[in-house]
Amino acid sequence: MTESFPSSARDQTLLRRVNELSVLAAVRGRAPRPLREISDTTGLSWRTTQVVAEILHTHGWLVETEADDGSGGRRAVGRPARRYRFRAEAGHVVGLDVGAHQVQVFVADLDATIVGSHRTEVSPADDAERRLASVERTLRAALTGAGLEPQDVWAAAMGASGVVGPDGTVTASALLPGWAGLNPGKALGALLRCGVEVANDANLAALAERWRGHRAQTMIYVLAGVRLGTGLVIGGQLHRGAAGAAGEIGALREIGWHDAAERLAAAAVGVGPVADRADAARQVFQAARDADPDALAAVDRFVADVARGVTAMVLTIDPDLVVLGGGFAYAADLLVPRLTAELAATCLHTPQVQASELGDDAVALGALRLALDTVDQRMTSLDSNTALTPAVIRGW
Amino acid sequence: MTESFPSSARDQTLLRRVNELSVLAAVRGRAPRPLREISDTTGLSWRTTQVVAEILHTHGWLVETEADDGSGGRRAVGRPARRYRFRAEAGHVVGLDVGAHQVQVFVADLDATIVGSHRTEVSPADDAERRLASVERTLRAALTGAGLEPQDVWAAAMGASGVVGPDGTVTASALLPGWAGLNPGKALGALLRCGVEVANDANLAALAERWRGHRAQTMIYVLAGVRLGTGLVIGGQLHRGAAGAAGEIGALREIGWHDAAERLAAAAVGVGPVADRADAARQVFQAARDADPDALAAVDRFVADVARGVTAMVLTIDPDLVVLGGGFAYAADLLVPRLTAELAATCLHTPQVQASELGDDAVALGALRLALDTVDQRMTSLDSNTALTPAVIRGW
Repeated sequence: MTESFPSSARDQTLLRRVNELSVLAAVRGRAPRPLREISDTTGLSWRTTQVVAEILHTHGWLVETEADDGSGGRRAVGRPARRYRFRAEAGHVVGLDVGAHQVQVFVADLDATIVGSHRTEVSPADDAERRLASVERTLRAALTGAGLEPQDVWAAAMGASGVVGPDGTVTASALLPGWAGLNPGKALGALLRCGVEVANDANLAALAERWRGHRAQTMIYVLAGVRLGTGLVIGGQLHRGAAGAAGEIGALREIGWHDAAERLAAAAVGVGPVADRADAARQVFQAARDADPDALAAVDRFVADVARGVTAMVLTIDPDLVVLGGGFAYAADLLVPRLTAELAATCLHTPQVQASELGDDAVALGALRLALDTVDQRMTSLDSNTALTPAVIRGW
Repeated sequence: MTESFPSSARDQTLLRRVNELSVLAAVRGRAPRPLREISDTTGLSWRTTQVVAEILHTHGWLVETEADDGSGGRRAVGRPARRYRFRAEAGHVVGLDVGAHQVQVFVADLDATIVGSHRTEVSPADDAERRLASVERTLRAALTGAGLEPQDVWAAAMGASGVVGPDGTVTASALLPGWAGLNPGKALGALLRCGVEVANDANLAALAERWRGHRAQTMIYVLAGVRLGTGLVIGGQLHRGAAGAAGEIGALREIGWHDAAERLAAAAVGVGPVADRADAARQVFQAARDADPDALAAVDRFVADVARGVTAMVLTIDPDLVVLGGGFAYAADLLVPRLTAELAATCLHTPQVQASELGDDAVALGALRLALDTVDQRMTSLDSNTALTPAVIRGW
């Protein structure tokens, strides 16, 4: 039956596309591989692998390289070992983190290798125009540093604090002046030829965590710092909600998230003079480590505030994991055990609590992942009658 | 390129399976269809459609029927018009709802057509053994009514109040005596040859709502009655959580879900003698409709209680829709506008609130859907080297 099974033209093009994507998956993010290895990985016959690789090579997705098996480019049998690598430099993506104090940009190739980055200090008081100018300057610097032009960017994503609607408009932002009502992705349209997807910063940090940190299928990411935010990963996917308002448990005023960090910082008065709230918090955490009773009480109170919101979220989605990230992640030694105990007191199933290890890069990394996902989605959802070429996936 | 594209044996079996599933999808839940129509729907060539249909017919998935085009079984051109229908009666599934007051069973064929049902009144005081005996009796009656034997059942699912772990063990149940620690699905193993998946009742009601009621991608289903429970659909899928504890917001004692219905019913004292809490609530709702101020205050208080929990859930997942179902769904005229107003007061994005129209059948219907999903999943995840036969999908 297998041999004589007939197939239509639709089957043929669909099958070709499946095989193309299968070969690409076998070479992406790897050292150059000989056809035989690609054939083994994909389960395709050697002949099919060869035909598909030639198409992909012609289109500019693969680079044929010299064999590097210690035999000087020739195999023992005297035949050249053809090796292919994914041409990750065929396109690039950009991830941006636009915060109150800084703007951060990562530029990566299609294998997610970061080829450029730039960070600019900005003022929390900057209006939208000034902040967008800083974003544009930072982006240009990152691209220049990578030897790239704006038109080399296939997809971009931006994280910003606040609620971001499905069309990329920021519908509410407590931190960034003039940001509410703005579509900061569209504002970058004059510079980049690709779309810029905008998402909530805590959401992107959660996505980064899922990608490069703790890989739980379902997790609540808590961005804990001078402000509190959360992002959700559900079933391995970033969950943004119907209007981008998922994870906004802080809107429940009675749980005290709006001034939790302020109250923590206030305890620093007893431990010495401080420049700002982040510094104050750092002093409180240090004093708590030194067993200062007031500082310990302040930390307990802060964690109880955090836990009130996280408990409601845990009881809602029952995640595998709660990740503690953000500016206060360095105090995980104090925060994680206390948060675990608070959750265990009420939750029917207490999830693991772990500290993020991604540091300050989490939001920009998550934006990078989102931009890469956009490219990947264009590749897998392309009509199988359309040839899979870089120009088609780039989108113009 | 298309014509000469080579394909491996793996491609062939995969392609055959895709085509088989594609033809089955084109005939399931429909009147008998001629090959031409199946070919048009699937996009497969006429010849491929014919070969696939013959395989499926041989295996017992399709029934060939007389043409019914008004020409007495012959088409104008003198050739018989071969029509196929899905043999939905090849297998059956069972959905059970095990509650405090009643046990309900639905039996359906593979097209989800209900071919048998039975309902038994039970006592809330019944111990686990007695309740399981009632379940078994109800199931036997439903099967007998449908002219089926236990071995005709390919998959079954059961809804029960309480938290249900991933292996089907009930880890907590406030309503059913002796139910905690029990695996009620396994207990039915002596009767049915298939596994019985157990799930939380509110979860299954949510699944039923997604299937036969409001079809929102992401929704919170509130089972509102003499007890309060919730179920979540996220991204079109039932979301049960890491330990089956999703939607258990009622564990937050301070929101008052544990005695919300009791406090509502207590207002009935002023409106006349009542037999039980459900009756009392009915009287309060009726008095509220008649503008009795105490009853209106009690309803306001009840909705405020419900809203405290639902608000936290909405702020967590930002759903498209909140569905109000359960025993009090008949009072939607009073409850829905109040709940909408309460949510709007705090939520950043207020979801629509709508009443369920599934009535008392919701949990058993959701169990039926879960059992059908199990069968469908076996069909789509079957190794493509294994022939797709009813015996293989039945599982023994």
